[in-house]
Amino acid sequence: MTNESGLARERVTLADIAVAAGVSVATVSKVRNGRADVAASTRSRVEAVLADHKYGRKPMGRARLIDLAFADLSPWSVEIIRGAEEAAAAEGCRIAVSVVSGEAATEAWLARLSVGQIDGVILVLTELAPVYREQLAAMFLAGGHRGSGRSARPSNPVDRRDQLGWRPDGHGAPDRAGPPPDRIITGRPALLCSQARLDGYRSALGRAGIPADPGLIYAGDFLFEGALVAARDMLGLADPPTAIFAGSDMQAMGVYEAARLRKLRIPDDLSVVGFDDLPMSAWVSPPLTTVVQPLASMAAMATRTVLDSLGGRTNPSSNRVELTTSLVVRASTAPPRRKAAVQRQR
Amino acid sequence: MTNESGLARERVTLADIAVAAGVSVATVSKVRNGRADVAASTRSRVEAVLADHKYGRKPMGRARLIDLAFADLSPWSVEIIRGAEEAAAAEGCRIAVSVVSGEAATEAWLARLSVGQIDGVILVLTELAPVYREQLAAMFLAGGHRGSGRSARPSNPVDRRDQLGWRPDGHGAPDRAGPPPDRIITGRPALLCSQARLDGYRSALGRAGIPADPGLIYAGDFLFEGALVAARDMLGLADPPTAIFAGSDMQAMGVYEAARLRKLRIPDDLSVVGFDDLPMSAWVSPPLTTVVQPLASMAAMATRTVLDSLGGRTNPSSNRVELTTSLVVRASTAPPRRKAAVQRQR
Repeated sequence: MTNESGLARERVTLADIAVAAGVSVATVSKVRNGRADVAASTRSRVEAVLADHKYGRKPMGRARLIDLAFADLSPWSVEIIRGAEEAAAAEGCRIAVSVVSGEAATEAWLARLSVGQIDGVILVLTELAPVYREQLAAMFLAGGHRGSGRSARPSNPVDRRDQLGWRPDGHGAPDRAGPPPDRIITGRPALLCSQARLDGYRSALGRAGIPADPGLIYAGDFLFEGALVAARDMLGLADPPTAIFAGSDMQAMGVYEAARLRKLRIPDDLSVVGFDDLPMSAWVSPPLTTVVQPLASMAAMATRTVLDSLGGRTNPSSNRVELTTSLVVRASTAPPRRKAAVQRQR
Repeated sequence: MTNESGLARERVTLADIAVAAGVSVATVSKVRNGRADVAASTRSRVEAVLADHKYGRKPMGRARLIDLAFADLSPWSVEIIRGAEEAAAAEGCRIAVSVVSGEAATEAWLARLSVGQIDGVILVLTELAPVYREQLAAMFLAGGHRGSGRSARPSNPVDRRDQLGWRPDGHGAPDRAGPPPDRIITGRPALLCSQARLDGYRSALGRAGIPADPGLIYAGDFLFEGALVAARDMLGLADPPTAIFAGSDMQAMGVYEAARLRKLRIPDDLSVVGFDDLPMSAWVSPPLTTVVQPLASMAAMATRTVLDSLGGRTNPSSNRVELTTSLVVRASTAPPRRKAAVQRQR
């Protein structure tokens, strides 16, 4: 898989040091690890090269640990983990992964947090009841976190609370000229990101001079099953849609299966557009046209924001960041064959 | 998503405590957190109920931290993370996730490990060069791990090394009566799990009285792209296969796309069987018949093995564990329509 968040940094490797010092990699490793079985002259030569390259200065104290708290784990989560891990590793830090869903798991998670060790928390679409949110805030904001000896504290509790509540957000829904999909299947209306996708859909319909019909909008949960049922119903109508915009790639897969069950071919009979650009959207058949949501970059930015806050490098402007989306056109979209049907009165 | 590893435990919740003590959940929470704004009589009543339920005894010291080191992150990784997180959380512990690929990342990872905090490492299909493996062993086996004040040590260095080298392993490839797939696309021959899948394929062919033809075996990397190319070639032969057994669900998706490009329908023209039973294998169209590899259970077992070892509860028999696989039949398999072609001489 390619490095989508573009965070990799050029680093000097042990092999580079070995070449420069004229020794084997194993010898460099021995010197770094303070092993005795290296000749003194070799050791000093290697240490000089290491110093020249500012290499081997091992981080002091413990590595910071940021907890990613997910409501559940899905293929979508991998992209978040990928971006957060890369950003954390670049700073010599690491990430923990927790699943926080339901009362018992939430309480157990808070109990683990209460014993310290975690420096920051990123809630990824995790909705905490007020009583738990209060406990979390008390731990991280009011100095109630009985942790190890780290001293970094967010300078502004409000900043920190915002970071705690970070959610990947689909703001910047597709906004392209051209014929808009005529149906939408999206996430729960309460989520900001569902609203944003719906706004983009309505705005595109408006520009194309097509009134948005609430009856053509299905609000699901961004998952496969609900989208399958909704799309099967839509495609069974007397006047079925020729295009469906799914609010997530997982929902798009539900639309694919509904089309297959109705013996409709994609894109000939039905165009489908997804949202997220998960790796699997390029693997489905046909490959899915979708809106690229920079999940890994979003997670990397959230991680860096928390780490900056811990390091005292607060950046007030980073409390709300919007990253742009783009459209990747693959093989699931084509001009409708039943043009007349698209122009029908509603 | 359902709890596939079956690790969830019944727990008493704060709400149960609140009901038993006749107070609100918020009050229970205040008592647990040592807040002053609770009447003394209420406090003692809540504390009694908490004690009765053995609830609220917060873990002492820090929570143990097990690092899952992946060569890369894929939809497959989610299942591993899910199982490991659940097993760790059940013991009041947590997991970190690292991506260890390439020399620079490996060295940075080892440097982070060297500052302590990580209690155990599970290598998930991560191949470490001998020099790095040696460093890792030195950190965890020779007491060279400068960590925080934990005292648990594996009682048997060899056990521990085995655990460090744990890999999810596809042993137990499908072994079912019935017509075997006549082509196989599997992973790199060097991997034990690729070999095991190939063995299962050969054994099934043997039982069906069909000689295994090395020309019909494609060794890839368990990923989409290679399988797409291989399947497109196979399906372009004068005498194309009517069934393909893919060594992974991701490879099966490559076979799906190759079939679509050749205008072949699954399962009418081509049956496809995958391996893994990732959640997405139920979402592809048509839903994929696949071998269920208990990834989450495998990860949970590896995590418990490491935690047991840290707690001094070693179990020599757990160094090599084989979990059984099963077959889930969905919609990608059907009797071949071109029966004659299947019976052809090879």
